[in-house]
Amino acid sequence: MSTVTTTTPSLPTTMRVSLLERAGEIGPAERPVPSPGPDEVLVRVASVGICGSDVHYYRHGRIADFVVREPLVLGHEASGTVVAVGAHVDPARVGQRVAMEPGVPCRHCEQCKHGRYNLCPDVVFFATPPVDGTFAEYVTLAADFAHPVPDTLSDDAAALIEPLSVGVWACRKAEVGAGTKLLVTGAGPIGLVTVQVARALGASEIVVTDVDPGRLAVAERYGATETVDVRTGTLDHLAAGAGRMDAFIECSGAQPAVLAGFPTVRGAGRIVLVGMGADELTIPVGLLQNRELVLTGTFRYANTYPTAIALAASGRVDLDGLVTGRFGLDRAEEALQSTGTPGVIKSVVRPGE
Amino acid sequence: MSTVTTTTPSLPTTMRVSLLERAGEIGPAERPVPSPGPDEVLVRVASVGICGSDVHYYRHGRIADFVVREPLVLGHEASGTVVAVGAHVDPARVGQRVAMEPGVPCRHCEQCKHGRYNLCPDVVFFATPPVDGTFAEYVTLAADFAHPVPDTLSDDAAALIEPLSVGVWACRKAEVGAGTKLLVTGAGPIGLVTVQVARALGASEIVVTDVDPGRLAVAERYGATETVDVRTGTLDHLAAGAGRMDAFIECSGAQPAVLAGFPTVRGAGRIVLVGMGADELTIPVGLLQNRELVLTGTFRYANTYPTAIALAASGRVDLDGLVTGRFGLDRAEEALQSTGTPGVIKSVVRPGE
Amino acid sequence: MSTVTTTTPSLPTTMRVSLLERAGEIGPAERPVPSPGPDEVLVRVASVGICGSDVHYYRHGRIADFVVREPLVLGHEASGTVVAVGAHVDPARVGQRVAMEPGVPCRHCEQCKHGRYNLCPDVVFFATPPVDGTFAEYVTLAADFAHPVPDTLSDDAAALIEPLSVGVWACRKAEVGAGTKLLVTGAGPIGLVTVQVARALGASEIVVTDVDPGRLAVAERYGATETVDVRTGTLDHLAAGAGRMDAFIECSGAQPAVLAGFPTVRGAGRIVLVGMGADELTIPVGLLQNRELVLTGTFRYANTYPTAIALAASGRVDLDGLVTGRFGLDRAEEALQSTGTPGVIKSVVRPGE
Amino acid sequence: MSTVTTTTPSLPTTMRVSLLERAGEIGPAERPVPSPGPDEVLVRVASVGICGSDVHYYRHGRIADFVVREPLVLGHEASGTVVAVGAHVDPARVGQRVAMEPGVPCRHCEQCKHGRYNLCPDVVFFATPPVDGTFAEYVTLAADFAHPVPDTLSDDAAALIEPLSVGVWACRKAEVGAGTKLLVTGAGPIGLVTVQVARALGASEIVVTDVDPGRLAVAERYGATETVDVRTGTLDHLAAGAGRMDAFIECSGAQPAVLAGFPTVRGAGRIVLVGMGADELTIPVGLLQNRELVLTGTFRYANTYPTAIALAASGRVDLDGLVTGRFGLDRAEEALQSTGTPGVIKSVVRPGE
Repeated sequence: MSTVTTTTPSLPTTMRVSLLERAGEIGPAERPVPSPGPDEVLVRVASVGICGSDVHYYRHGRIADFVVREPLVLGHEASGTVVAVGAHVDPARVGQRVAMEPGVPCRHCEQCKHGRYNLCPDVVFFATPPVDGTFAEYVTLAADFAHPVPDTLSDDAAALIEPLSVGVWACRKAEVGAGTKLLVTGAGPIGLVTVQVARALGASEIVVTDVDPGRLAVAERYGATETVDVRTGTLDHLAAGAGRMDAFIECSGAQPAVLAGFPTVRGAGRIVLVGMGADELTIPVGLLQNRELVLTGTFRYANTYPTAIALAASGRVDLDGLVTGRFGLDRAEEALQSTGTPGVIKSVVRPGE
Repeated sequence: MSTVTTTTPSLPTTMRVSLLERAGEIGPAERPVPSPGPDEVLVRVASVGICGSDVHYYRHGRIADFVVREPLVLGHEASGTVVAVGAHVDPARVGQRVAMEPGVPCRHCEQCKHGRYNLCPDVVFFATPPVDGTFAEYVTLAADFAHPVPDTLSDDAAALIEPLSVGVWACRKAEVGAGTKLLVTGAGPIGLVTVQVARALGASEIVVTDVDPGRLAVAERYGATETVDVRTGTLDHLAAGAGRMDAFIECSGAQPAVLAGFPTVRGAGRIVLVGMGADELTIPVGLLQNRELVLTGTFRYANTYPTAIALAASGRVDLDGLVTGRFGLDRAEEALQSTGTPGVIKSVVRPGE
Repeated sequence: MSTVTTTTPSLPTTMRVSLLERAGEIGPAERPVPSPGPDEVLVRVASVGICGSDVHYYRHGRIADFVVREPLVLGHEASGTVVAVGAHVDPARVGQRVAMEPGVPCRHCEQCKHGRYNLCPDVVFFATPPVDGTFAEYVTLAADFAHPVPDTLSDDAAALIEPLSVGVWACRKAEVGAGTKLLVTGAGPIGLVTVQVARALGASEIVVTDVDPGRLAVAERYGATETVDVRTGTLDHLAAGAGRMDAFIECSGAQPAVLAGFPTVRGAGRIVLVGMGADELTIPVGLLQNRELVLTGTFRYANTYPTAIALAASGRVDLDGLVTGRFGLDRAEEALQSTGTPGVIKSVVRPGE
Repeated sequence: MSTVTTTTPSLPTTMRVSLLERAGEIGPAERPVPSPGPDEVLVRVASVGICGSDVHYYRHGRIADFVVREPLVLGHEASGTVVAVGAHVDPARVGQRVAMEPGVPCRHCEQCKHGRYNLCPDVVFFATPPVDGTFAEYVTLAADFAHPVPDTLSDDAAALIEPLSVGVWACRKAEVGAGTKLLVTGAGPIGLVTVQVARALGASEIVVTDVDPGRLAVAERYGATETVDVRTGTLDHLAAGAGRMDAFIECSGAQPAVLAGFPTVRGAGRIVLVGMGADELTIPVGLLQNRELVLTGTFRYANTYPTAIALAASGRVDLDGLVTGRFGLDRAEEALQSTGTPGVIKSVVRPGE
């Protein structure tokens, strides 16, 4: 192993990024190409998915206590190719295509040492102020958080390993497995990957709700065994008796969805809140107690990337089909604005184009 | 094994019970001594603890959907001596002292076959309308739910294996073990047994809250390492940083206690709601998600009696010290009325006296 | 619910069975049609898979301490149609097609009450002396062990839910899930269903070994990502470094297979012994300790039928393709003798033909 | 936080160590006092327990593939006081008394990121060639592996947090909790701490075997509810029926102990091999399968120090009572030779004396 940084010969010294100056104001900028630390790799970014959190920072300049005080590079669902490695990293990795896990923990705290590194209070996460993200031609990342992907996986799919990880994590928390009867509320990108993961894990019933028939149709294509448009339909048939569903993964962030889902879960079943909504939620606690329901939420994910890559690489999960628009780095604002418009599931920014 | 019922020679044909005619009206009555079914035992009742649910039926004639429509025998925390056995039961059990687990499940449903028999929808539970309870000289019970106790355990302690089971179950759900930092809100009988179980399991910090200094003093005697009178004190010091406690067991049923406890729990910690309160509860769901807290409740218990008996028999848990009043069957009303008065922790009815 | 047995009008009073008189001697016999107990159903048997244990009783008259002392009806992998129900069973079940779970536990012991009913010491299991099995036109069974199957499942597939359950149970013990790298040694019927279950659960690598290229070819069709003919090949490439596989399910009963598999398992991986071989086994205990490998075995299964039925009904697992021969009740001996001959995977006896 | 190393003013530049030149040859030597790295602390060593592995290196110059090729400093069960900290460490830690967890993992591999850092293939462990240990006046250690201890814990007890961790880890693997019936074979230092941990966790029966009545007497003092001198006694009474014990922790490394313990474990019970013996072991695999016993081993421990410190600090576990001899650094050889002689449980080396 070399003791100095190994790079490809042709690296430039400056690069283009897309910079959020303040809420609502984003545009191209130039930055020096960063150098990898000893345990890091430098990655030429290929594709970046747009996440709801990017849109939220763009529109509001903050999420809860995270405030955009300095100009910020957005983007954290990213793939690319290793173009340089730090002194402690195998030089053979140069040229490797990777999916980038965007949050690097401290590795020293109690949460890290117990394997729950997503709960590390000192995690450094792309595009969370003041840490820049991946709307850039190049980024550095801890070498072990740059996960190799096979060539059967497209650049876009490799970027979308990030939201897929959210679905893998949700299914782990919900203990989805063979024969599981699962309710998923919300058929946005997270709901749709969750449905696919559940199908890949052998779930036998996957009921999906939304208010958008188009998204429900996509859910059916991805494995939903039943869909309910909750503008007109109900879940009463699932709540009959003492509840039919083994687990319930909430992906909409809408309080009515949580409340509708609760009584469908059978005794000792799991409820996992993935969608972000209000800070407070009123729950039917008597039901939770009488059925000993287990309610939890997810915060990012831990140890999911290898699993997510395996699921996508084997074709069990389709990520390319989620991509409804591709944009160059100059058009990052357009990509951000596209999110949430009818027919759009996932927009990606491709900094190399 | 005999094919007919085996009994002691001297059994009477009728017995005294204490009968709740309707809300607020309870008194002595005579009933035939029941006969054990093939898999049952007949038990001469020695001691019966008064539970909050007994008091609730006495005062209001109902709990949620369970309504006292016919006269009902209350009482379900009970011990006694086997005096007869059904055809399939070992006759050698006659004479055995037992703690009675009050809920017998169907043994055939999915919940039963998964070992979660407390969630059986067809459970038959003492003193839950229309099933009579143990304020009686004799009761029948499934043989395997009449758990043998050693002679080192008093009749009262054997009866209080029931509330102790609630504490054992809560500690299992909360994953209390060696080194656990535990918050217990509410120092009533359930809180006090939970504290003792946690101490017996090796918990290293046990913080207990209540509004009654007398109860907090008892909690200290039973293993609390810190007590907080929440009329004047707060839990802010436990909530500093990202939360100090590994687990939180709520035994008060009071919404403010739930809310105060939430932020004290560290990432991936457990919150177990044992106390019964309102049907709805507003929770800080953002906190639950960001810390991936696990929230659940308890409904009775399963497979706890042998453990609870072992804890009490070894002296690790003190149950006799909880008994603050003893009453004959004729004075059952007095026993019910004593509950909740200052200085009273647990009253017991002793049908044989 | 009726209080008397409900039956179809046309039930005969006697029936044909295939009776094992002693080792090596089996033939037709007539028996009275049994009556269901209050919690039982009477099933007209449609299909019965031949298991290695049936063949062992036929050839040797015993398995370990279970000795055929009285004439015995073999067969325990069975499906059929409910034709009568006991007094406590819903009469609407008459006419229902079912897969029969062959072992009914006592429901009262500690193992049963913990949900581990397969370990009940008093289980009553078809075709285990002195309990008769399903090489018969009719059998009775506890109603909750006769699991409804959808019409998309053939009679043969419904019978083979039994061996599929063995595979489901093995995968649960091995904690197979999305992204699991699994080694399966032995590609007989159990190995082949295990491969299919692992694929349905999202396993990303499934390496299968055997000494029969024909069986390895079937394994590939069913999801093996790599096969090794261990007459000529080795597993050294999987054992490189500190072991590549997350889990190892042994389905051959051959000691060399166990030993070859051990070093392929990474630290904290699981090894599950399903195949039955000698009573003693020499293991590399230093390796087990240094890697903290978890070694266990399976004994039948518990709570697997609904899952197995869901997997087969959804087409994720193919059972019909395992059936290589069908025989009437008169030809049960021929069916038994066919087992183990080249090209035979699973023979079934169909009592109605 | 400072950006340079913070130290106490009076640190010397050289220090005394005890150096193993080759098998059987150990003596005093002088070495430079090491400097802590940015994430490290420098600790003045107070007490070091003698472990069997130290004795093995001293006598044989190797353990398995670990060979003493260069002079080696032995010792890894150690406590001390922080006297300097690296640039990234809180300077307030200077002066803090600590128990030193001796193995620092890479923090980047799959095992580390899953919280199983004891299985990290790149762990750096005190006194494992070529890494020097703690028979020295000063050592450096990763700051987060130097665990603060309260003043109620003596220096010797703080050193023995290491073997106590072995017992904590074994009890976790064996799932010891309230009401557990546990067999411990071998009453050496590890067996004795395991007994104490099991008692602190609420185990209701703790049966201990050994061939030394003196050690069995100590075991009784520490919580054994029954002891068996296996030179004259057997465990047959525990094996009756289908096995009485919930778990079995093997601490002797003797094959007969393993074999005697196996049949005492009830269905689905756990067997944990802690004692090191031969590389191969013949097990009753039929029993393992029929009872679905779970067999595993331990390799050091992970995330046990805070728990072990809490147990010792609260007085639930007595470590000082295990210390039967104290030696200065010059007498390290004498300390090593004392191990295994009658009446000796644990010798400690105190470098400061």
